[in-house]
Amino acid sequence: MSTADSRNFMKCPSFLDGMAQSDQQLGIAPPPVSKAAAGELIHLPPFDDIATQPCYASLLDIRRSVRVYDENTPTTQAQLAFMLYTAMGIQDYRGQNSAFTLRPAPSGGARHPFELYIAVQNIEGLAPGMYRYHPLAHVGEKAAAIEFLHQIDDYKTTITDMVAGQKWAAAASCVLFISCVPYRAEWRYKELAHRVALIDLGHVGQNVMLSACALGLGSCCIAAYAQDVCDKVIGLDGTEEYTVYGVTIGVPKQ
Amino acid sequence: MSTADSRNFMKCPSFLDGMAQSDQQLGIAPPPVSKAAAGELIHLPPFDDIATQPCYASLLDIRRSVRVYDENTPTTQAQLAFMLYTAMGIQDYRGQNSAFTLRPAPSGGARHPFELYIAVQNIEGLAPGMYRYHPLAHVGEKAAAIEFLHQIDDYKTTITDMVAGQKWAAAASCVLFISCVPYRAEWRYKELAHRVALIDLGHVGQNVMLSACALGLGSCCIAAYAQDVCDKVIGLDGTEEYTVYGVTIGVPKQ
Repeated sequence: MSTADSRNFMKCPSFLDGMAQSDQQLGIAPPPVSKAAAGELIHLPPFDDIATQPCYASLLDIRRSVRVYDENTPTTQAQLAFMLYTAMGIQDYRGQNSAFTLRPAPSGGARHPFELYIAVQNIEGLAPGMYRYHPLAHVGEKAAAIEFLHQIDDYKTTITDMVAGQKWAAAASCVLFISCVPYRAEWRYKELAHRVALIDLGHVGQNVMLSACALGLGSCCIAAYAQDVCDKVIGLDGTEEYTVYGVTIGVPKQ
Repeated sequence: MSTADSRNFMKCPSFLDGMAQSDQQLGIAPPPVSKAAAGELIHLPPFDDIATQPCYASLLDIRRSVRVYDENTPTTQAQLAFMLYTAMGIQDYRGQNSAFTLRPAPSGGARHPFELYIAVQNIEGLAPGMYRYHPLAHVGEKAAAIEFLHQIDDYKTTITDMVAGQKWAAAASCVLFISCVPYRAEWRYKELAHRVALIDLGHVGQNVMLSACALGLGSCCIAAYAQDVCDKVIGLDGTEEYTVYGVTIGVPKQ
C-alpha cells in the first residue's frame, strides 16, 4: 500500500453511506460477543483489594515502557485477573439479545471485536502455556476466568519469534496478545470497522499498561510483531481472527 | 477499499523491510515534535491538586460514554489543563536533538504524530473558539498552555456538522479534536506509520476519557465525524495534517 493510501486509511469516510446495507441494517442476528470456551475454565483469585492505592493522576506521571524484567519474581494470578478485567471485562449489556457489551474501554458501536490471549511464562501457580481470557464467565463481577489452550514449545525462542526478534520480551512474566475478530465489528460497520477497531485497540492497550503500572508491574506494548508466527502459535486462522497487538507484563528489574 | 483490504490493514507487515530506507535510516533530521505557536500562549492554571483522590481501579468501574451534558455548568481551565497534559504532555526527551518525546501515553518509536485542538464552548474564563494545545511550552512540568486560533461561527451548528450530525456533541463544554501529522511517524516507519498511529491514538483517547472521569466530568469519543468539515473548521490541509478523532467533554447532566 502506498503512503498516500495508508494516510487515507486513517481518515473518516461517511458512516451513513458505509453502514448502509450492513448485516445489522439487514436484520441479521449479531455474532457472539466473545468466543466460547472449549475446555474447563480456571477462575482466578479475587482482585478487589488490589490497586486501590495509586491515584490515577500519579500513574500518568510515572508510566514508562519497561523492557527489562526480573525473571525471578512471578506475577500473581490476582494481578493477572485485574489486568484482564480492566482490559476487556464485561460489566454490563445493552440492546436486544444482549448484543452490546459495556467494558472498561469504549469501542465503536460497543462491538469490542477482540479476544485476549495470555502467553504465560512465570505466573504464580499457573502452568506455562497459552491461555484465553473468558469475560463471559463473570459478567458484571470483578472477577476473571481463563482457559488453558496449549503448551508453548521452547517458550523464549517462540516468544522472540512472535514479536519479530525483540528478545527482551521473552523475559516478561507473560505476554498478552490481542486478536481481532473482524466480523464482530463488520456486522455493524462493514469495511469501516477496521479503522475504528485499531483505535479501540489502543483504548484497551492503555488500560492494560496503566493497570500494570497501578500494580507496580512494568509493561510495554508491541505493534511490530510477526503476523504469521503469532497467528500460528496462538492458533488463529488469520482471516476471521488474527493477532493485532501485544503487551509484555512483568516485574521491573531493579 | 474492500473489506478484505481493510482487514489486512490491521495486520502487521515486516517492520525490518518497511523501515528500510526510511528518512530516519537515511540520516535525515527528524521533523519537529510539535507545531510551533503563531500567536501568544495562554498559560492555564495549575492542576497539581486536581484528581488526586480517585483511585485508578475505581475509574474503570464507573467510566461510561456520556452524551447528555449540563450546559449551565462550565468546565474549569484547570480541569482542561489536566486533560491536555494527560493526553499529550511532554514529560521528557530522549535521543539526539531531543527528537523523541516521552508522554503519558506510549507511541510507536516515540513519534507521537498528533496535535490537539480544543473547540471551546463553555470553559470558565475562556473565550469560545478554537484553540491548540502547546505541549512544548511546559516540558517536564505539570502545566499546560494553549493558543487561541480563531472563532467558531454558529458554534452548535458547526460542531454538529463536524461530528457528522451527532447533535448531542454540541452541548458539551468543549470538544477535543486530535489531528495526525503523518510525516512525524513516516520519518521512521514510512507507510507502516498509519496503522501504528491509529493504535497510539486510542492510547491518547483512553487517557483523556479516564482523566475526564477522574475529574467527575463526562466524555465520549467520536470516530465517526465529517472529515472535510473538521479539517476546514480547524484549519488543516487534509494531507500533511488531518483530523483523526474527537472527544466531547462536559459536566454530566444529573
